Amino acid sequence: MKKKNKKVNAAILIIGNEILSGRTQDKNVGFISKWLNLNCGITVLEVRIIPDVEKIIILNIRNLSKKFNYVFTTGGIGPTHDDITAKSISKAFKMKYGFHKEAYKILENYYGKNNFNDGRKKMAKMPIGAKLIYNPSSAAPGFMTKNVLSLPGVPSILNSMIENCKKYLISGLKVHSQTINLFTVESNISTELDLVQKKYKKFVDIGSYPFFRLGKIGVSVVSRSTSKIYLNKVKKELFRVIKSKKIKILKI
Amino acid sequence: MKKKNKKVNAAILIIGNEILSGRTQDKNVGFISKWLNLNCGITVLEVRIIPDVEKIIILNIRNLSKKFNYVFTTGGIGPTHDDITAKSISKAFKMKYGFHKEAYKILENYYGKNNFNDGRKKMAKMPIGAKLIYNPSSAAPGFMTKNVLSLPGVPSILNSMIENCKKYLISGLKVHSQTINLFTVESNISTELDLVQKKYKKFVDIGSYPFFRLGKIGVSVVSRSTSKIYLNKVKKELFRVIKSKKIKILKI
Repeated sequence: MKKKNKKVNAAILIIGNEILSGRTQDKNVGFISKWLNLNCGITVLEVRIIPDVEKIIILNIRNLSKKFNYVFTTGGIGPTHDDITAKSISKAFKMKYGFHKEAYKILENYYGKNNFNDGRKKMAKMPIGAKLIYNPSSAAPGFMTKNVLSLPGVPSILNSMIENCKKYLISGLKVHSQTINLFTVESNISTELDLVQKKYKKFVDIGSYPFFRLGKIGVSVVSRSTSKIYLNKVKKELFRVIKSKKIKILKI
Repeated sequence: MKKKNKKVNAAILIIGNEILSGRTQDKNVGFISKWLNLNCGITVLEVRIIPDVEKIIILNIRNLSKKFNYVFTTGGIGPTHDDITAKSISKAFKMKYGFHKEAYKILENYYGKNNFNDGRKKMAKMPIGAKLIYNPSSAAPGFMTKNVLSLPGVPSILNSMIENCKKYLISGLKVHSQTINLFTVESNISTELDLVQKKYKKFVDIGSYPFFRLGKIGVSVVSRSTSKIYLNKVKKELFRVIKSKKIKILKI
């Protein structure tokens, strides 16, 4: 994997009516986002969940692929009629759609010549020129078209394939984070947090998230930065606030 | 709640770095989407997850509020510096941002005059003219600005408030769904599913979703329609396919 000494970003495009309707709980956003930051120093800056509608997929692929360094799509690369991701991406980039020779061979070997029916063959069709993302679980490969990487929607299969994306990615600066969990309410520390955030706004993002634990209310203060030095400076300032307000810290 | 005899749609805009980074797993999309369909006949057609950045919130509010009948935002309405939803929506619609008198009174009563600090007061600030969405859990109200309904990000609080959105919504046609769980692989039924989908494409959406259960692979075939009559027609056709292929049905 090549490396850039600057920020690299990505968007995730979840394609699937089942996520939009609430029938299925998405589990891929968190997994991809954490994996990208930890392994590639790539930060996810936008997620969209859209239905299995060609026109909508095309618009979103065009829009997101221009705005972000990488786009990861999930879903819609299986054998059924509602799997239209590959065809839609071909149309979005005005590329031909057809069989990928290597993908065809992989699938033919996996299913055996006699069981290689039309549905299964469909999974070897993609934008001509796309690069394969190998699938160690169920053979059907994902693919990369320009800066768009297409993965399946089933989390266990996606998880098994993600390492195979690495060779296609140029990595950036990793975002480090530090969390301090406090037994207090947000409004007790909001003025002080605001001051610390303003002082370091160029280098550190500070977020404040309420939690409930053992019947008590608390706040997780999460600082995120590509610089460990600035993260430590913020930590010191936060501890000064916590001490002056006599707030109890929750150790997990 | 008023009723329209046609389809009504919505988008959900999740505002929060913690969801994008994978630190927090979103639980609001499924809840809101199911609640809207079941209680109001409103279908969610797009979800976006974006960071706590004013410029980005403004762009998305403008874009989504034009494209959909309703927009539900979650997150960013608390007392801390990273809670910028209310201010951003004011800017998106070029409305003044200031104290809502009733919200101010609700919060002052809840915290008591002596404990009503600046952070807490901030939660009474919103676009001037916004309508309140009452909060039975933690007092701080949500609000509706034009067709945008803003709710907090903490799922338990959001869940307790959702019924109070109802009076502001015009309901549409409910989408009914029927699921048949089969012990087969998708590629075994993909051709037949495609034919049934094509025949009923104006009235019914058929989705096919693989599952793993007790070591076996299966497929959930989910049909969705505003018409129960067409849903039944599709069901009959699907059972004909299942019978002819001698596929076992999983009864849950």
